[in-house]
Amino acid sequence: MIDAAAVVAALRATDTRSRGNREAWTPEWEAERAQLDALARAAAPGLVIERDAFANTWYVLPGDSADAVLVGSHSDSVPGGGWLDGILGVHAGLGLLASAARKTGRARTLAVVDWADEEGTRFGRSLLGSTAATGALSPTDFAALRTADGLPAAGVVEQYGFDATALGQPLPRLAEVRAAIELHIEQGPVLERSGRPVAAVAGCLGVRRLRIEFGGQRGHAGATPMDHRLDPVRHAAAFICEVMELAEVSSGLATVGRIAADPGLPTVVPARVELTLDLRHPELSPLEELAAAARAAAGQAQIERLFSVDPVHFDQQLLARAVEVTDGGEPLISGPLHDSVSLAVYGVPTMMLFAPSIGGISHARAEDTAESDLAEAIAAFGSLADQLLTTNP
Amino acid sequence: MIDAAAVVAALRATDTRSRGNREAWTPEWEAERAQLDALARAAAPGLVIERDAFANTWYVLPGDSADAVLVGSHSDSVPGGGWLDGILGVHAGLGLLASAARKTGRARTLAVVDWADEEGTRFGRSLLGSTAATGALSPTDFAALRTADGLPAAGVVEQYGFDATALGQPLPRLAEVRAAIELHIEQGPVLERSGRPVAAVAGCLGVRRLRIEFGGQRGHAGATPMDHRLDPVRHAAAFICEVMELAEVSSGLATVGRIAADPGLPTVVPARVELTLDLRHPELSPLEELAAAARAAAGQAQIERLFSVDPVHFDQQLLARAVEVTDGGEPLISGPLHDSVSLAVYGVPTMMLFAPSIGGISHARAEDTAESDLAEAIAAFGSLADQLLTTNP
Repeated sequence: MIDAAAVVAALRATDTRSRGNREAWTPEWEAERAQLDALARAAAPGLVIERDAFANTWYVLPGDSADAVLVGSHSDSVPGGGWLDGILGVHAGLGLLASAARKTGRARTLAVVDWADEEGTRFGRSLLGSTAATGALSPTDFAALRTADGLPAAGVVEQYGFDATALGQPLPRLAEVRAAIELHIEQGPVLERSGRPVAAVAGCLGVRRLRIEFGGQRGHAGATPMDHRLDPVRHAAAFICEVMELAEVSSGLATVGRIAADPGLPTVVPARVELTLDLRHPELSPLEELAAAARAAAGQAQIERLFSVDPVHFDQQLLARAVEVTDGGEPLISGPLHDSVSLAVYGVPTMMLFAPSIGGISHARAEDTAESDLAEAIAAFGSLADQLLTTNP
Repeated sequence: MIDAAAVVAALRATDTRSRGNREAWTPEWEAERAQLDALARAAAPGLVIERDAFANTWYVLPGDSADAVLVGSHSDSVPGGGWLDGILGVHAGLGLLASAARKTGRARTLAVVDWADEEGTRFGRSLLGSTAATGALSPTDFAALRTADGLPAAGVVEQYGFDATALGQPLPRLAEVRAAIELHIEQGPVLERSGRPVAAVAGCLGVRRLRIEFGGQRGHAGATPMDHRLDPVRHAAAFICEVMELAEVSSGLATVGRIAADPGLPTVVPARVELTLDLRHPELSPLEELAAAARAAAGQAQIERLFSVDPVHFDQQLLARAVEVTDGGEPLISGPLHDSVSLAVYGVPTMMLFAPSIGGISHARAEDTAESDLAEAIAAFGSLADQLLTTNP
C-alpha cells in the first residue's frame, strides 16, 4: 500500500523548491529531477535508474518476469504552474516503488517513468518525450521545432542527453511493457462537481488545431461605407459564432484562444484577422465532421493545420479493473492530452485515473486538490497497480 | 486663378523630399515647413509669416479690411503616408497666395494656415494644432497626452514653439476670420465611384470611440465543457456581429480595428478579450442611439470612452456657393475628421471641398488622385476663395 501522506509531503517539498517553475529543458527542471533520483534511491535501494535516448527517466524495479508494468507521468510543468499537474503521477509512482520494494515475489517488473517535456511549452509540441520513446515523433517533425526565439530544439535538448539520431524508432524496452497506468489530476471541473475523489478515464478527446487567417481590405473607419467593406473582423466574428454552435450541437469543444487584427489601429478597418481554433471530440467521425464544417464556415480564409491527434480509447479490460478500484463510478473522458495517449497509440494496454481539480483550475498556481481526495486517488491507483504487478503474464 | 500645374509640381517636390514621412514634431516635418516658408516668400513678397502659440504657421496677405478668409489644411502626414493628404490644401493655399498677390484691391485679408499635428499619430489626439488654436484643447487634456513610449507631449512640442500655458483660450486673431475653407482629398471611394473631380462637403460624421473589455473565466481548451464556459471570445464575437448590424440599420459606420485575447494561447479559453469600437454617424441623435445600443449589446463588459466628437454641419450659405463652383453636384459627408471641424465647432462659417481618392486609398504610399482631377478641384477651390476674398464685409 502506498504511503499517501508521504506522497503528499513529497509533492509539497517539490513545490516549495520549484514554485511551479519546472519547465522542461531548464536548470530548474533538471534540479528537480535530481531530487527525484535521490528520493527513488532512498525508497528502493538497488533500483536501476536510467535516462533513455530522449531524456525520459526510468526507475526500474525488476520482478520475477521481464514483463513490465509502466507507471508514468511527467515532472515538467508550465511556467508558473501548480503543485500537482504531472508531478502527482511521478511522486505516486515513487511511492508505489517504495511500497513494492518492501514486498517480495513480484510477478512483474515495475518501471516508473518520468516523461520529458509533456507540456510542450518550449517548442509548442506536447508529449515530446513519450512520442519520441514510442517512435511517433519523426526526425523531420523534430527538426522543424523551434523555441519562441527561433532556436532549433536540437540545440536546446542535446544538453539534456536527448539524442535526435535515435528518433523514429520505438525504444526496445517498450516491447516488454504489458500494461501502462497513470495517475493525474483532471484539470477540469467535472469530477469535483460530481463529488468523487477519483475516477477511471476511458479515453482522450481527439484534437484538430488550426490557424485561420481571414483576409480583407484595409480601409478608413470613417471613409469606407459599410457596403463597400471587406471587413475581416466581421467575417471572423460570424465564423466564431457559427463554429461555437457547431461544437455544441456535436457535443464537441471549440476554443478560439488567440485572435488579432492587423494593423490593429482603432480607426482602420483591418486588412486581416488571424485566429487559432482548437476543436476536440471523443469520437473520430464527429471530430472530422466538426473540422470539415469549420473549414466550410471559414470560406475563403487561409487555413493551416497546427496539430492533430485522433481520439484515443484506453484498454477495455483495464477500464473494467479501474472502474472497480474507483467504486464503480462512471469513467471520464480526458480533454487534455497525456503521455498515456502516446502509449495507447503505440499499442500498450493503457489506463488513467483522475483526481479532482478544485474549480477545474490548472496550469496556474491556484491549482489544487483536497488532500483527502488525493489520498483516495493514490489508494485506488496503488490498488490497480498491485493487481497488475501480481498478475501472471 | 491658381496655377494648378505649379501646385501639383510643388506637391511632387514635397513628396520627393519627404517620401510621405512628415510626422508632426519631427525634424522631417520641420524641414518641410521651412520649404513651405521659402515657397510662400517667393510667391508673395512682403507676406507676413508667423508661428502662433501652438506651432501653427500663418501666411498672411493683408487686404483692404482686417476681415479675413482663412484657408487651412496640414503639412504633417502619418508615417509612410501619401503625397496629398493635408499637404494638398497647404500647397493649394500657397498657390492662392501667389494668385492673390498678383491682384490689386483685395477686399479681405487672406490667411493661409498650416495646422500642426492634424494626424495625431504621436499622441493619439487628432487636430491638435487647430483645437489648441480655437481653445477647444484644455490644459488638462493636453497634460494627459503621451507618446507611445510614455513621454509627455509637452516635452516634445515645446521644442517646436508650442506654448502649453496659452491653452484653453482661442487665438485673438480668429475673431477676424469671416470664413474658412479647406481643400482635401476624400480618403474614401465615394467620389471616384461617382466619376466627379470635386465635391462640396456638407459636414463631418460624429464619432464615439470606445475600448471594450469582455471578462470571462480562463479554462483549458480540452477540459472545460462548453456549458461551463464563460468564454469572452464568444461573447465578443456575438457583440461584433450585433453591432455591425446595428450600424447598417442606422446608416452609420462601425469598426473594430483592434482585438486581442488574453492570455492568447491556442489551448486556453481566454480570461478576457479587449477590442476598440469606432462608431460614426452624420446625425447626432442616431449616433447617440447607436452608441447606446452598442453599450447595451456589450452587457457586463467594461467600457471606456476613448474619443468623442459630435457630427458637424458646415455653413449653409457657404455650402450653396460650394455646390455652385462644383457644378451643382450632390455634397458629400466626410467620414474622417479635418481641421475644418475645429473651426466650425468654434463658430467660423466653414466649408470643405474634396478631390477624389483613387480606390479610396489614403494613409498609404499608394494614395493618389488623377492630375486632371486635381486641376479641376484646385480651380473650384480658387473660384470659391476668390468669391470670399472679394466679398464686401
